[in-house]
Amino acid sequence: MKETIVPVEWKGDFVKLLDQTVLPEREEYLEVREIRQMWDAIQRLCVRGAPAIGVAAGYGVALEMQRHVSDSIENYHRILEEALDYLSTSRPTAVNLFWALGRMRGVGKQYETESNSVCQKYLEEEAKAIERYEENACIAIGENLLSLLEDGMTLLTHCNAGGIATVRYGTALSPMLLGQERGIHFKVYADETRPLLQGARLTAWELQKAGVDVTLITDNMAGMLMKQNKIDAVIVGCDRVAANGDAANKIGTYSVAVLAKHHQIPFYVAGPVSTIDRNAKTGEDIPIEERSPEEITCGFGKRTAPEGIKVYNPAFDVTPHELITAIVTEKGIVTHPNQEKITALYHNG
Amino acid sequence: MKETIVPVEWKGDFVKLLDQTVLPEREEYLEVREIRQMWDAIQRLCVRGAPAIGVAAGYGVALEMQRHVSDSIENYHRILEEALDYLSTSRPTAVNLFWALGRMRGVGKQYETESNSVCQKYLEEEAKAIERYEENACIAIGENLLSLLEDGMTLLTHCNAGGIATVRYGTALSPMLLGQERGIHFKVYADETRPLLQGARLTAWELQKAGVDVTLITDNMAGMLMKQNKIDAVIVGCDRVAANGDAANKIGTYSVAVLAKHHQIPFYVAGPVSTIDRNAKTGEDIPIEERSPEEITCGFGKRTAPEGIKVYNPAFDVTPHELITAIVTEKGIVTHPNQEKITALYHNG
Repeated sequence: MKETIVPVEWKGDFVKLLDQTVLPEREEYLEVREIRQMWDAIQRLCVRGAPAIGVAAGYGVALEMQRHVSDSIENYHRILEEALDYLSTSRPTAVNLFWALGRMRGVGKQYETESNSVCQKYLEEEAKAIERYEENACIAIGENLLSLLEDGMTLLTHCNAGGIATVRYGTALSPMLLGQERGIHFKVYADETRPLLQGARLTAWELQKAGVDVTLITDNMAGMLMKQNKIDAVIVGCDRVAANGDAANKIGTYSVAVLAKHHQIPFYVAGPVSTIDRNAKTGEDIPIEERSPEEITCGFGKRTAPEGIKVYNPAFDVTPHELITAIVTEKGIVTHPNQEKITALYHNG
Repeated sequence: MKETIVPVEWKGDFVKLLDQTVLPEREEYLEVREIRQMWDAIQRLCVRGAPAIGVAAGYGVALEMQRHVSDSIENYHRILEEALDYLSTSRPTAVNLFWALGRMRGVGKQYETESNSVCQKYLEEEAKAIERYEENACIAIGENLLSLLEDGMTLLTHCNAGGIATVRYGTALSPMLLGQERGIHFKVYADETRPLLQGARLTAWELQKAGVDVTLITDNMAGMLMKQNKIDAVIVGCDRVAANGDAANKIGTYSVAVLAKHHQIPFYVAGPVSTIDRNAKTGEDIPIEERSPEEITCGFGKRTAPEGIKVYNPAFDVTPHELITAIVTEKGIVTHPNQEKITALYHNG
């Protein structure tokens, strides 16, 4: 990559966050110094993308607890619980948020008889470990995806599962970004991804910056490109994968999966194992966030729909496992995913 | 309908056009007084929708020729030819434009030995006849569609094929608007229709004004609604239908047709016979307009994609006849359309 963008960075006494809401117009960073700011940054999508949300939440907890090291041990752990519960209300769908908070909770429990400063040290170490885990996962996912692709292929992606949604290489964009470093080149079509245009604002920006050949389309053009045999494979990220392989991802992903099926194009879902929620038996068990109507009716500084119009604005949809050619994780490639194969993944390495 | 909006109105010495580019914020009308203004109004989509473009073009020619009635007969007819050729370059896909101009050309030929004022009278009459034809066609299409639907159904539509795209009732929206007058009520989901948001700006506005229960969604949400069994039928308009029943319509229509097929939902294409181009054997023969990248990168007064990004922006796509449950015209319903059935339509009535 020509330039590495770090969406979430631990600075010792604050967290530096790339404000993804103002991209690509401005590359601005927030200095998050307390937990309400972190909650707000996650809720407003300043930081977004399932793995990046998890990393940010881990650091958010570590940051908050710094202020309570001199409290009583009892108080410290009570506030830790409150912080974990509070951040878990910031967004409902991406499971990495709950997974990262669960890891932080585990460390809190493990060191609850130690001094606060010891516990604090391990909380900070755990947040950093979550970041390292996600970075390594991105590279391994990229390697695994590259094994499924050929140099020169044309790929379609939806939303943004790039470096700024994860750590460094991204999940869905990892083969493109890693490939670019290694002289393996793809042509990429990026769905703009309404309503919040993560494809236009973030994927197009990130791939262009890395020198990848990227073309922007509106979401409703993907079908036409597939019909013209212009797409060799679809790669998307995921926000939560159920135990049977059903995958929740940005709204519109399901439609792309149906289109890929109709045109017999491979449809790959990329994500770290931290995105799998084995407590969700199927996609039915994944809560789908509904967001404000204004994202659709006046998303670009201008009202583009009549006053008082009814709007339906789910932020995610679920693609059933039958439509997924493979789920590509850092622990391996699960082709034609189902519950058995997903379970087996946990016994790998 | 609570209020009738007239998108194209002949005023004797000018044409009053609803400026559809500023809806729904403002309801403004243009006074078109010469042919370059009409060309520009069609090209910029102030007037849009295949039937409405045809009506506007007819009046545009009649208007221009008023200024040449006192010319020599030879001059009058030379200028008529130039006017017809000129307006035919305003947009490439909707065949109603060429069909209406062809009717005007026919009248010119028929009266070329008469005085200019006689020819002018018949040109104006022909333009009015085109408008009446399209209005009657809309009503007949609405009746035919109502025969396929049931009270209380939930319908999905893409783009805008309403009264402002045609004359009065629209094509795809005709059953909803006619139904509303008759106490037959539908729930309608309107795709916002990127990039120019005709669904959000025009369909939502038009149905809301008429009192129809309408909900706005982004294009990429239609699949999720279908999966949830929330859509009983899809109805769209068309810009050109080939002799075999392949139908060009607003970009994204093809994707909706594939989604409808996958979910076994009827997919209806509504349009007057004037939209059928028997010279186009299949959809391959229909020219697809490509429009400016700025419609996607900065459509609403704000740049939402990085500078210099490549963009693909076809304004239409073609839905193959195999995906169409029925083409609904004023002359009848063509179920599972093919060349034979389309040809038979011309021998009806």
